[in-house]
Amino acid sequence: MKRAYRIIRSYLPIFGWVPTYNRSSLVNDLIVGGVVTMMLIPQSLAYAQLAGLPAQVGLYASMAPLILYAIFGTSRTLSVGPVAVVSLMTAAAAGQIASQGTPEYLGAAISLALISGLLLLLMGLLRLGFLANFLSHPVISGFITASAIQIAVSQFAPLLGIKAEGENLLDVSVSLVKNAGQIVPYTAVIGVISLAVLFWMRKSLQPLLMKLKMGPRASDILAKAGPAVVIIITIAIVGIFGFASHGVSIVGTVPKGLPAIAVPHIDLGLFGKLIVPALLISIVGYVESISVALTLAAKRRQRVDPDQELIALGASNVGSSFSGGFPVTGGFARSVVNFQAGAETPAAGVYTAIGIALVVLFLTPLLFFLPKATLGATIIVAVLSLADFKALKCTFIYSKADFAAMVATILVTWAEGVEIGLVAGVGLSIFLHLYKTSRPHVAVVGQIPGTMSFRNVTRHKVVTNPGILSLRVDESLYFPNSRFLEEYINDAVSANPDVRHVILECPAVNAIDSSGLESLEAINQRLKDGGIMLHLSEVKGPVMDRLKRSHFLEELSGQVHLTQFDAISAIDPDLADETLKATRPETS
Amino acid sequence: MKRAYRIIRSYLPIFGWVPTYNRSSLVNDLIVGGVVTMMLIPQSLAYAQLAGLPAQVGLYASMAPLILYAIFGTSRTLSVGPVAVVSLMTAAAAGQIASQGTPEYLGAAISLALISGLLLLLMGLLRLGFLANFLSHPVISGFITASAIQIAVSQFAPLLGIKAEGENLLDVSVSLVKNAGQIVPYTAVIGVISLAVLFWMRKSLQPLLMKLKMGPRASDILAKAGPAVVIIITIAIVGIFGFASHGVSIVGTVPKGLPAIAVPHIDLGLFGKLIVPALLISIVGYVESISVALTLAAKRRQRVDPDQELIALGASNVGSSFSGGFPVTGGFARSVVNFQAGAETPAAGVYTAIGIALVVLFLTPLLFFLPKATLGATIIVAVLSLADFKALKCTFIYSKADFAAMVATILVTWAEGVEIGLVAGVGLSIFLHLYKTSRPHVAVVGQIPGTMSFRNVTRHKVVTNPGILSLRVDESLYFPNSRFLEEYINDAVSANPDVRHVILECPAVNAIDSSGLESLEAINQRLKDGGIMLHLSEVKGPVMDRLKRSHFLEELSGQVHLTQFDAISAIDPDLADETLKATRPETS
Repeated sequence: MKRAYRIIRSYLPIFGWVPTYNRSSLVNDLIVGGVVTMMLIPQSLAYAQLAGLPAQVGLYASMAPLILYAIFGTSRTLSVGPVAVVSLMTAAAAGQIASQGTPEYLGAAISLALISGLLLLLMGLLRLGFLANFLSHPVISGFITASAIQIAVSQFAPLLGIKAEGENLLDVSVSLVKNAGQIVPYTAVIGVISLAVLFWMRKSLQPLLMKLKMGPRASDILAKAGPAVVIIITIAIVGIFGFASHGVSIVGTVPKGLPAIAVPHIDLGLFGKLIVPALLISIVGYVESISVALTLAAKRRQRVDPDQELIALGASNVGSSFSGGFPVTGGFARSVVNFQAGAETPAAGVYTAIGIALVVLFLTPLLFFLPKATLGATIIVAVLSLADFKALKCTFIYSKADFAAMVATILVTWAEGVEIGLVAGVGLSIFLHLYKTSRPHVAVVGQIPGTMSFRNVTRHKVVTNPGILSLRVDESLYFPNSRFLEEYINDAVSANPDVRHVILECPAVNAIDSSGLESLEAINQRLKDGGIMLHLSEVKGPVMDRLKRSHFLEELSGQVHLTQFDAISAIDPDLADETLKATRPETS
Repeated sequence: MKRAYRIIRSYLPIFGWVPTYNRSSLVNDLIVGGVVTMMLIPQSLAYAQLAGLPAQVGLYASMAPLILYAIFGTSRTLSVGPVAVVSLMTAAAAGQIASQGTPEYLGAAISLALISGLLLLLMGLLRLGFLANFLSHPVISGFITASAIQIAVSQFAPLLGIKAEGENLLDVSVSLVKNAGQIVPYTAVIGVISLAVLFWMRKSLQPLLMKLKMGPRASDILAKAGPAVVIIITIAIVGIFGFASHGVSIVGTVPKGLPAIAVPHIDLGLFGKLIVPALLISIVGYVESISVALTLAAKRRQRVDPDQELIALGASNVGSSFSGGFPVTGGFARSVVNFQAGAETPAAGVYTAIGIALVVLFLTPLLFFLPKATLGATIIVAVLSLADFKALKCTFIYSKADFAAMVATILVTWAEGVEIGLVAGVGLSIFLHLYKTSRPHVAVVGQIPGTMSFRNVTRHKVVTNPGILSLRVDESLYFPNSRFLEEYINDAVSANPDVRHVILECPAVNAIDSSGLESLEAINQRLKDGGIMLHLSEVKGPVMDRLKRSHFLEELSGQVHLTQFDAISAIDPDLADETLKATRPETS
C-alpha cells in the first residue's frame, strides 16, 4: 500500500502538493497566473509566427501543456509553452515536409509535438536523461547564439513587410537583401517603432518604474508585461487608421473556441522523416527546461527529478499535439516571471492555462488587426538576449578545443541549418574529447631525496636507477589511448638499452577497459620478450578488483606494489633506502 | 645539411639500414625471401579469389608494395601484401559498384587501393594515427572473428563447387543451403581432402618434423610452406587426370608478364562511393599492421614509428594500385614467417617481390590447373585461426560493456555486412564509454579519527559535521557528466537542510572542460542562492592553472584548500583538531 503510494507520488508529483494546498496559495497562484497570461499571449502568437504557423496554434500550445506539467512536473515554478529555439527547429523540420501555410505543414508541426512527446516519455521511463549530456555546454551555447541571430535576422522580413525564404541564415540573408526593394512603408514604420519601444522597455522601463517608487519585484514584472501593451497599442492603431489596406500584414481571423482534441494521424513515411528532428527538438528542449528548473529550484532549495521531468515534458508535448499545438518546453523568460511573481505551486500554471482559454474563447476577434511586424519586433527583442557573445570569449580563453566546438556549431548552423549544426557540434565535441584523452600525460618519475615521494624527473631533482624506468600515467587506460602507452613504452625502452624493469605508477588511473587491459598484456609480453619485467604500483581498489577478473596478474612478469616506494624498494632496496636517508634538497 | 639528412632518414627509413648492409645479411635475407615467396604464392592467389578478383591481381599486389614498404617502412620484419579481412572488405566494397568478373569490379578494387593509399599517406603526414584508436580492442576482435567466420562459410562455395551470393553471412548461408544440390563431386572431393590435409599440416606437421630430428625453427617454417605443397599436388592431379572436364573449377589462364604501371582512372562519383569503405579498409589494415609490427619489433627491442608506418602503408597501397593490385597491409602470418626465418632487413621483402616477379614472368602456365577448391581450403584454414572465441569469454568476465560492443559488432557484421558492422561497433564503444563516465563515482567523505585522512562514509568509521557536506568525485568533470554533479549536489543539499558548506575533494579530477566549468559555476551560484558556501580541495596543478583562466575562482563563495584536512580545519577547526587527536579505531 505504502509502496504503491510512493510509486504514484513519484510518477504523479501533483500528489505532493495538492493535499496541502490552501487559500493563501490559491490567491497567490491566481495573481501569478494572471500576470503570466499577459506575458504569454504575445509570446504564443509570436512563436507561432516564428514557427510559420497560424496564430491560434501558439495559443493552443499554451493550455494543455501547462495543465499536464502541473500533474507530472517536479518543478514548482517552471512554465511550459512555445519557446524561440524550439519554434525555429519546428519550422526547419516542418519546412522539409511541406511549405508554410499548407495543411501538411501544420500537420507536420503537430506530429513533431507528438513524436517528440513520445520520445521524451520513453527517455523518462528508460531513465535516459543522460543523453542530454551529449550536448556539451559550448555546443548548446553556440547553437542558441546561432539560432538567436538567425531568428532575429529572419524576423526582419515581417518587420519590414518583405519576403525571405530559406532554412539557414545564409539563404535567409541573401533572400532579405534581394527583396529589400519591396519594403512596405507602413509596415516598416510600425515594425521599427515597436522594436525601438520594446528595446527601450527592456532596458529602461524597470529603472524608470523604480524611480517612480515602485518596488523592484513589481516593477520587474510590470516591465515584462510591456510587449502586451505594445501589442494592444499597435492593434488599435492599425484597426483605427485602416492600415491593413495600405499593405500592412495582419494576423487576421483567429478561430474562436477551444481546440478539438484529436490524435494526429502519422504514417510511417512521415514518422521516418520526423524522428531525427523530433529527437533533436526533444533534447534541446529538455536541456533548456531542466537547466531553468534546476536554477529556480536551487533558489528555494527544492528538488527537481531529471527523469520525471522527461516524463512531464513528454506528457506536455503529447498534450500539445492532441490539442492542435506544436512542440513546447520549459521556457526561461516565462519561468522567471512565474518565479518572480511568486508562484508557489504548479497550480499557477493551471490558472495561466485557464487565462489563455478565456482569451481563445472570447478575445480572438481583438487579435484581428494585430500587425505581424509587431510580433516580429517582439521576437527580435526576446531572442537577442539569448545570444551570448561573451561566452565565446570566455571559452576561447578557457579551452581552445571547446571554443572550436562552439564556433563550428555556430558556423555550421548558419550555413547548413539547425539540425546539421547541432549534430556537427555534438560530433566534434565527442571527437575532441576522445582526441584529448588519446594522448594522456605520462611522466617519468624519480624519488625525491629524503622522502618516499616520487615526482616528474623534468620538474624535480630526483634520484633514478638507469635499470628502472618509472612512469606515471595521468589518465584512465581505455581504447582511445591504449595504443599510445604501447608506443610510448616501446620507444622509451628502445631508447634506454639498460632498462631491466618498467614500473607503471597508477594513482590517476580511474578505470582500465578491455582495450587498456589488452594493451597492458601486450606491453607485458613484449617487455618479457625483450628481457624486461613490468611492475605496477598504486593501483586503485576498483581497478585492482577488475584486473583480478582477468589473467593479467598471473601473466605479469613483475609484481603489483602498494606504493611506488615499495616497488623501488623491492627491486633496488639499497637505492631506495639511501635516497630516503639523503638530505632533502632545498626547493627553489 | 644535418637537419635535411634527419628529415630524409625519418621519411625514408631505408637510409637507416642500406649503408651498413653487408654480405651476411644479403645471404640471410635471400634465403628468407625464398621461403616467404613459397608461402606468399598460395596466399596471394587465395586472397585474390576471396576478393573476387582474377588470380594475377593477387600476385601483382605482392610485388610493388613489398618494395615500397622496404623504402618507407620502419619495421625490419613486417611483410606487406593481401590479407584475409582486407580482401573480404574489398569484395564487399567493390560488390557495391559492380558484379564480380566485370572490368568495373576490378577497376573498383584497384581504385580502392589508390584511395586507401592516399588516405593513409594523408593520415601519416597529418599524424592522424590516433584515429585507429577509435577501433577499440573488443570491436576489432569481434570484427575479425565475425569476418573470419563469414569468410570461412563463403569459401565452402568454391570448396564444393556450388554458387553462393551475398554481402553478409546471413545471405551467403541461405544461398549456400539453397544451392547445396548442385555440388560438383570431383570438386568436393578435392576440396574436402585439401582441407583435411591442410588442417593436419597446421596441427601436426611441425611436431612430426621435430620428431624427425628437425630443428624447431626449420620445422616451423617448413610446416608453413605446406599449402604450397598441397597446391602443387592438386595442380598435378587435376592436370594429369583431366578433372577440369568433370566440372572442377580451375584458375585457368593467368596472364604472363609483369603488370603495366598505370594510374587508375577514378571519377568523382566512384570516389564518393568508395571513400568510406576505403577509410575503413585503411584503418582496419593499419590496426592489423601496426600491432604485428610492434609485437615483432619488441622481440628485438627495435623501434617502430606509428606515423611513418601510415606513410609506408600508404605508399604500398598506391604502389599496389599503380601496378594493378588491390588493397594490402602488413599481414600477421607472413610477417611471423619472415621474422622466424630470420629476416634482418626489409631487403628480404624486396627479394620476395623479385621471387613473385619470377613466378609472374615464367611460372604462370603452371597455375592453369590449380583448382579453386584448393584455394578455398587454404583460405578456410588460414582464417579459422583468426576467429577468437576465447576473447568473447574473457571480455564477458572482464567488462559487460566491452562484451556488448563485441557482440554487437559480430552480429551486425553478420546481418548487415562488414562496413555497417564496423561502424556500429565503433559507435557503440564510444557511446558506452560516454555512458560509463556520465555517472561517475561520488563518495561522501569524513575524517578518520586520529588521522588527517578522509574516506567514504559508507565504508569507514569517520567523523562528519552535519553542517558540512564533503564529496569526492572520482572522474574528470566534462560534458557527459557535468549535469550529473549539478543534480547530485542539488539532491544532497535538499535532503540535508542543515548543510551550510559543500566541499568538493578533487584528487581524481584530471581535467575540467568548459561544460564542467559552467556546471561548477551553476553549482556555486545555486548554493550561494540557497545560503551555502562551496569549497574545493586537492585540486591538481594543471586543473588549477586552467581554472585561473576563468572567473570561477573570483566568484567562488568559499575557498580552494590544498588538502581536505585544511578545508575542514578552516571551516570547523575544533572538529578537525579533536578528530585528529582521537584514537584511531581498529580496522576490522
